[in-house]
Amino acid sequence: MLTKAEFQRLRSLREKKHREALGLFVVESEKVVAELLAANFPFVEIYATPEWRRSVPAVAATKGFPVIIEVTPAEMARASHFPTPSTVLAVGRISRPEFTPNLLERGLTLALDGVQDAGNVGTLLRIADWYAFDRVVLSPDCADVFHQKVINASMGSFARVPVHTANLAELLAALAATQAATPIIGCDLEGENVHTLPSLRDAVVLIGSEGRGLSPALLAHVTRRVTIPRFGRAESLNAAVAAAIVCDNLRRAQQRG
Amino acid sequence: MLTKAEFQRLRSLREKKHREALGLFVVESEKVVAELLAANFPFVEIYATPEWRRSVPAVAATKGFPVIIEVTPAEMARASHFPTPSTVLAVGRISRPEFTPNLLERGLTLALDGVQDAGNVGTLLRIADWYAFDRVVLSPDCADVFHQKVINASMGSFARVPVHTANLAELLAALAATQAATPIIGCDLEGENVHTLPSLRDAVVLIGSEGRGLSPALLAHVTRRVTIPRFGRAESLNAAVAAAIVCDNLRRAQQRG
Repeated sequence: MLTKAEFQRLRSLREKKHREALGLFVVESEKVVAELLAANFPFVEIYATPEWRRSVPAVAATKGFPVIIEVTPAEMARASHFPTPSTVLAVGRISRPEFTPNLLERGLTLALDGVQDAGNVGTLLRIADWYAFDRVVLSPDCADVFHQKVINASMGSFARVPVHTANLAELLAALAATQAATPIIGCDLEGENVHTLPSLRDAVVLIGSEGRGLSPALLAHVTRRVTIPRFGRAESLNAAVAAAIVCDNLRRAQQRG
Repeated sequence: MLTKAEFQRLRSLREKKHREALGLFVVESEKVVAELLAANFPFVEIYATPEWRRSVPAVAATKGFPVIIEVTPAEMARASHFPTPSTVLAVGRISRPEFTPNLLERGLTLALDGVQDAGNVGTLLRIADWYAFDRVVLSPDCADVFHQKVINASMGSFARVPVHTANLAELLAALAATQAATPIIGCDLEGENVHTLPSLRDAVVLIGSEGRGLSPALLAHVTRRVTIPRFGRAESLNAAVAAAIVCDNLRRAQQRG
């Protein structure tokens, strides 16, 4: 039986300020919880209905599995962040990977500028994970990585790709001032064809918001404008779709040599 | 001043059965309405606040522009399908492109099997439009193309790409029985590399639902299993993202010859 204070604490994690204050976040998707448990993700608490408990004997045998607090479906409905509660609610500790300003010089970085749609941010994390990007950097006005909608759309990738939050304009200005000459790729309707990208070992792929694209402060730092060839009449592609096509072509060019 | 019956009619278009019965659908996104008007889309009615009317003098001069019924923001809130009403509500007539069973033999077809997320269906229509696919075929259990979330996510592409609804299993069985030998492409984790697809003039690209992938009845008809190379650890890609990568590689291979 959960106390009133416990319900309040779990529900408060809906909001970013409370997540930040407590250093905790919540996952309620059965699929994402199962995937993270299978990968030994160190959840600190798991609340589950008897139904969920019965369904995961294999996972529950994993070492380091946290104690499961059994709750009734009615209690779950009270603790849940959603109108339709799940059978499990897992609490994880927010951890921030170490950030150094020269991080962007090496490897592949996906940088998101003001992507506010949580589903899009999650999908972008999943793409970064699929293409083994070294990191994702979010501008402070992106959807919060520990928002449940981001976590769910990322299908667990939020826990596998290092995600940083930083002022992108400052970061790119600093990068431009180094000797690294790491290319900064931005999508544009009049850039080089993404199909003829050369092999790039290091690169930053900049993705703008759905509504207004890349902000002018960031556009000024783009050193390679790339275009995804269009054959029909759509005006643009969804941000995550465009990012995926750039990532696929980037990796393909690397393999070609 | 709208009558009670008029409010009821507009609000009823939220539901598919009423859209089908009246043969009408609604668009409330200012962006999508403006884009469709600029393309001379034949809306049958437009309800707008004075604010919207002032903002679109250029578009309003277009020939064939329907009569605008001016409503107050309070009336718009009552007619709107959303908690946050827009400044415009446009009503269009549902039209279904002609469908013949041998349609799939020629050109490029995107076929969606049980894609229930309206945002995903809209994004997929936008991708089909960008890559100039000849048509999209939805299985009957996909999200309805005239659902506002589909319309909005498609950014107007729903009006540019012919969209059909049909029993995909029957359609593919019929296609397999013809002499056309049109390849039927399905994504798989162990197929041929999408980067080495040959140039295909005609093809059907099958996309399954997020949760359960392609149904076995359809998988049996796939003649080319393609795989999107993975470099990292994500288990899968979002359905729309995977479709976009296949489309990009298909068009790229055609250009190469």
